[in-house]
Amino acid sequence: MQKIQTVLSPLLLQLTSLEEKVVVVIDVLRATSSICVAFAHGASKIIPVATPEECMQYKIQGFIAAAERDGKPVDGFSIGNSPFSYMTEEINGASIAMTTTNGTQAIQLSKAAHRVIIGSFLNKKAICDYLIQENRDVILLCSGWKNNFNLEDTLFAGALADALASEFIIADDASIAAIDLYRLAEPNLNEYILKSSHAHRFKVLGIEKDIRFCLQQNIYNKVPVLKDGFLISV
Amino acid sequence: MQKIQTVLSPLLLQLTSLEEKVVVVIDVLRATSSICVAFAHGASKIIPVATPEECMQYKIQGFIAAAERDGKPVDGFSIGNSPFSYMTEEINGASIAMTTTNGTQAIQLSKAAHRVIIGSFLNKKAICDYLIQENRDVILLCSGWKNNFNLEDTLFAGALADALASEFIIADDASIAAIDLYRLAEPNLNEYILKSSHAHRFKVLGIEKDIRFCLQQNIYNKVPVLKDGFLISV
Repeated sequence: MQKIQTVLSPLLLQLTSLEEKVVVVIDVLRATSSICVAFAHGASKIIPVATPEECMQYKIQGFIAAAERDGKPVDGFSIGNSPFSYMTEEINGASIAMTTTNGTQAIQLSKAAHRVIIGSFLNKKAICDYLIQENRDVILLCSGWKNNFNLEDTLFAGALADALASEFIIADDASIAAIDLYRLAEPNLNEYILKSSHAHRFKVLGIEKDIRFCLQQNIYNKVPVLKDGFLISV
Repeated sequence: MQKIQTVLSPLLLQLTSLEEKVVVVIDVLRATSSICVAFAHGASKIIPVATPEECMQYKIQGFIAAAERDGKPVDGFSIGNSPFSYMTEEINGASIAMTTTNGTQAIQLSKAAHRVIIGSFLNKKAICDYLIQENRDVILLCSGWKNNFNLEDTLFAGALADALASEFIIADDASIAAIDLYRLAEPNLNEYILKSSHAHRFKVLGIEKDIRFCLQQNIYNKVPVLKDGFLISV
């Protein structure tokens, strides 16, 4: 059987070889959820970029450009990382350039892996099916908050590891902890996440509606995959 | 109120300012537990050192020298990090030099803090009383395993945060997760830890007896404190 391990912060990814593995990048509030939303609404491709400046260059070339820092759209950009920004008509068929505080950075760090895919509660079952099909060692990479551990990404890593426990070897303590936290939180995920240390930040940002949306399970069945520097949907 | 935060790996300590804070270094299996044992058995001082070579220099000077790597005593040293090695007559009044895979490294990394103390289940209540008395922001530093997250150190961080929750602000998601994991594991800590990914390693090392010993709560009431590069007991 192949193995699953969970990396609780991008800063810890350096401890692990990416070679021949599939990395699931997780930033459920909100970058990786919004990426799933964009593809569900017909986006053609998404290029994750490191900085707002780079993102602006793509905007000039005609991409839809999305830039978020500290939970808010960056000045000069109309779109940040709220999932509701990716449900419009103009998303259909569009090429999008995106930079976010945590999620797009985690994607960049994962590039050396055999495959990089994008996970969220919204496409959980599709992710599980994909990983079983690929039949390789898996790294669940939690984007966290500025390299710090966060609850919501860990809970989703736990949800995936729990769902895949009969098909893979659970290979590290981080996966065991994530599974147990997910089982504890699962009866009321929304309430559990609102007890997190970021709850106050969520309130200030006014994103409780985004959170409720992002915690829905299996409303999409597509898997965003990184190919030649672009995310496409398979 | 002062704040408590939990750092789940030494590699994540760089994200946090140590200034004016008290760091509790945690390596319950087994370095920080054994340090508590040594002081309970009359050790005069313990110097944490980085390498077995440095440790050997102290041995030549007449220190008792303890060196562990990968769970076993290093060649040339009779003592590793088993708590039972620190219960002998010769420990009484002795100066000890110690190097371990994880715990002594975490102590070195914490040196810039206002105060560095050594925690284990064995002296849990003494640690709590000390932190309440100090009345400063607290960092619970889990030594982990070669910078990877581990369950046992996280559980003890959770035990401390849980016990201190009415006296401090629980300031990060890592502390919330650690508390919830501890509450889940607490009815049978030993069994919970033996389901960890290191259980097989523990078995190979034959340290189940050490583990049972290290999970006892509050059998000692001393707090090892780092002062001028040495640990002493207060």
